Amino acid sequence: MGGLLSVDSGVFEQWRQRSLAAFEIALDGFVPAGAPAGLGEAMRYAVLGGGKRLRPLLVLAACEAVHGHTEAAMRAACAVELIHAYSLVHDDMPCMDDDVLRRGKPTTHVAFGEAVAMLAGDAMQALAFEVLTPETGVEPALQARLCALLARSAGYDGMAGGQAIDLASVGKQLDEATLRDMHRRKTGVLLQASVLMGAACGPADAKATAALSDYGAALGLAFQVVDDILDVTQDSAVLGKTAGKDQDANKPTYVSVLGLEAAGRLADQLRDQAHRALAASGLTDTAWLGLLADMVVERNS
Amino acid sequence: MGGLLSVDSGVFEQWRQRSLAAFEIALDGFVPAGAPAGLGEAMRYAVLGGGKRLRPLLVLAACEAVHGHTEAAMRAACAVELIHAYSLVHDDMPCMDDDVLRRGKPTTHVAFGEAVAMLAGDAMQALAFEVLTPETGVEPALQARLCALLARSAGYDGMAGGQAIDLASVGKQLDEATLRDMHRRKTGVLLQASVLMGAACGPADAKATAALSDYGAALGLAFQVVDDILDVTQDSAVLGKTAGKDQDANKPTYVSVLGLEAAGRLADQLRDQAHRALAASGLTDTAWLGLLADMVVERNS
Repeated sequence: MGGLLSVDSGVFEQWRQRSLAAFEIALDGFVPAGAPAGLGEAMRYAVLGGGKRLRPLLVLAACEAVHGHTEAAMRAACAVELIHAYSLVHDDMPCMDDDVLRRGKPTTHVAFGEAVAMLAGDAMQALAFEVLTPETGVEPALQARLCALLARSAGYDGMAGGQAIDLASVGKQLDEATLRDMHRRKTGVLLQASVLMGAACGPADAKATAALSDYGAALGLAFQVVDDILDVTQDSAVLGKTAGKDQDANKPTYVSVLGLEAAGRLADQLRDQAHRALAASGLTDTAWLGLLADMVVERNS
Repeated sequence: MGGLLSVDSGVFEQWRQRSLAAFEIALDGFVPAGAPAGLGEAMRYAVLGGGKRLRPLLVLAACEAVHGHTEAAMRAACAVELIHAYSLVHDDMPCMDDDVLRRGKPTTHVAFGEAVAMLAGDAMQALAFEVLTPETGVEPALQARLCALLARSAGYDGMAGGQAIDLASVGKQLDEATLRDMHRRKTGVLLQASVLMGAACGPADAKATAALSDYGAALGLAFQVVDDILDVTQDSAVLGKTAGKDQDANKPTYVSVLGLEAAGRLADQLRDQAHRALAASGLTDTAWLGLLADMVVERNS
């Protein structure tokens, strides 16, 4: 981790702000204001409403680590955030988690009705693949690779599958291995795919790609462990979503399975694991990725 | 239409049966039985449960018309049917059309619950793009082209957008132009995309592609006009879904806007338009496409 310490956190913060500003402009341009019958407004409400933008930052940082194709990475960043945002819209609906608050605002179905929210989520998933497949500007082979990575991470073996396990596990005791599998699919796979999509935008060799994959897996799990910790240690105002929700719903979490202290230790171990993977990648410009791993573990919301 | 009459309808039926048999095997292989927590069962229930398979047949017939890449077309056929089937799952849900019968069976949310049905739909959309992006066997540039066509036809400017207009138009009087725009998006665009995806699998020139696009547009509209006619002339047992539903929901249809007789004439005109487009394509092997247009207009369910 020696090299990383030499990066001033102010420099990272500048990179983060600059990247996010460019990302928000790109995303805004992709999400149609004019889609029919309220659909465009609902889509824009759901995805332009802020959020940490961790997945886009991972795409962009991984692309910088491999000196990759900037336009392709920005499209990948928008696509992965569209997938993430659509999943939140659907997860919040009454038939799923039935949540009314997200990022400090009413959830999409509260604001637009259930039917429009469901369609907006559906259209956001399609839009993600539309964003990845422009007429010009990104090589077709890279387009196909990015679609492949995103589709696999969003589907039955990734995010949607994890959500199904999550639903089925309410009120159940899970061991740590099962919990880990659920979270790997539900959250981890898309975070890992963000890293791999960024890496796909440049000439990463097999060793670097494998290392970045390890980094993404460790970071993905760390993210969920910290999420579980924050769910019991922070209040709704800080989180911008309903706190204590998992506990109330009797859902198994890292805190319920391991206890608060051990969960905190696990998060630190996973952060170290992420940093070790970066060190093993053979890549030199991984400072942003390292600091993003720190950000994930040190965040308070 | 002269050339088409020379094709024996028994030969077409043989082609259709052979194509469908190969399609069902391919699709069965793509939809995971083992996806977690009931998700795989729900996906398989929703997409392997029969149906006319018109979209896959259009993909395969268009591919044959351009002497295209068979594996790519079969993947495209499966992908487009996954999109169609997921849209039915979501459309049938209580917050949308609230339907309990589909293809003669309980709808997916009735059989598996709303949460699993929504997730199954979401996972089916992702799976469509996964099917289009295999590691090997289909050229990456063709993969990207197929993803581009499918994403655009499924999203806000296509199917999801049409569904949003449909929802917003319940109880309203629409003129024929608005009704046509709604149906073009809701049903037509995906049917047209099926033809274009098949055509993309081979070396179709600009003239042929434009003609096939016209064919797809005419066929797509004809399909919906006939759907509206069948909704009032057939009963639920024949249709395998709830008949008279649009009328009961006070939805504008071609029958309510034009009357039954004029709607029938429009369907015949659109069929002629489809045939003329094929004649103008410069392609010789369009017999299956022509007979599919006939099938769309002459069907009774």
